Amino acid sequence: MSKKTAGSEIERLIALLARLPGLGHRSARKAALTLLKRRVDLLQPLAAALNEAAAKIVECPNCGNIDTVSPCTICQDPRRDATLIVVVEEIGDLWALERAGVVNSLYHVLGGHLSPLDGVGPEQLNLAKLIERAVPPVKEVLLALNSTVEGQSTAHYVTEQLQGHGVAVTRLAQGVPMGGELDYLDEGTLAAAIKSRRPI
Amino acid sequence: MSKKTAGSEIERLIALLARLPGLGHRSARKAALTLLKRRVDLLQPLAAALNEAAAKIVECPNCGNIDTVSPCTICQDPRRDATLIVVVEEIGDLWALERAGVVNSLYHVLGGHLSPLDGVGPEQLNLAKLIERAVPPVKEVLLALNSTVEGQSTAHYVTEQLQGHGVAVTRLAQGVPMGGELDYLDEGTLAAAIKSRRPI
Repeated sequence: MSKKTAGSEIERLIALLARLPGLGHRSARKAALTLLKRRVDLLQPLAAALNEAAAKIVECPNCGNIDTVSPCTICQDPRRDATLIVVVEEIGDLWALERAGVVNSLYHVLGGHLSPLDGVGPEQLNLAKLIERAVPPVKEVLLALNSTVEGQSTAHYVTEQLQGHGVAVTRLAQGVPMGGELDYLDEGTLAAAIKSRRPI
Repeated sequence: MSKKTAGSEIERLIALLARLPGLGHRSARKAALTLLKRRVDLLQPLAAALNEAAAKIVECPNCGNIDTVSPCTICQDPRRDATLIVVVEEIGDLWALERAGVVNSLYHVLGGHLSPLDGVGPEQLNLAKLIERAVPPVKEVLLALNSTVEGQSTAHYVTEQLQGHGVAVTRLAQGVPMGGELDYLDEGTLAAAIKSRRPI
């Protein structure tokens, strides 16, 4: 946007919106215009929600989840199976598993994956705390990391670190996704699906 | 996101972000997590920028542009060619023309296009003010509306309204866009380009 057409306030708003994932500069401009058109029902509530989130939401010192209580609701929940910790890369992965409602475990958020080229080593991840938590009553640590090179090498490293701690270390099954059409799957997925084939 | 995993503050933030154009529910979740991870350098500045924009940015009563001054910087600029008003549908279109820097005119933002099915008639557009402005020194009104059915029927309506006002009403040329490959252009564009062909 030209300096001539609008104040630095709009430019600043657009520049900040453009830093959100999923919004480029063009969609940030559209978003800013939408916000300015809908001040009462969108802009002001969003500003309030941001301030409230900044004030109330804290990271769980135990598992790395975010919540308004500390430790987080999941860590405090006595109905959770405290013998199983599911390790994920990001909080979004934890949310995905909770939405699916397929496991009633505790979690541990690493905060990313090992990526030496980006300067992410073991110290940059929430890893020491995981080792500390891997004691009774915990019996199993399930590494629900992304099925990417980085995710899998992180899983390898975490597995090594947990050896000798007396906990079983497991990983997610690999294979054909539900609704997946063979013709569209990559070779790696097909190879894993065949290698891990099961009797019907 | 499950009720179990995070407070209503996060859910509310995600719901508001999801109402921005270009952000679905999934990308709104990612944006919320990014904001919560980067509180100092992103969340807090964004909240401040929203509040500042809400407080300072006003719609120009003359042309419908937004700015921190009223009338807007463009309407106040004595170096602008005050004989030409370029009419656009949205403020984003005005910004696009200003970025391109191809015209040094005044503008008029209609705020949309006629769309009877959506309840948008002439009264819902910033049209009466345009008729009012179409007096000397204005000599020409250029309708830079979208080349869509709605944009063109709006142009037709505006042209009718401006008849007898002593101003020339023009529209943008239609044809092959710069860098456009004929093989990828639609029939309408090709037909317009041939109809308006020019000697070399």
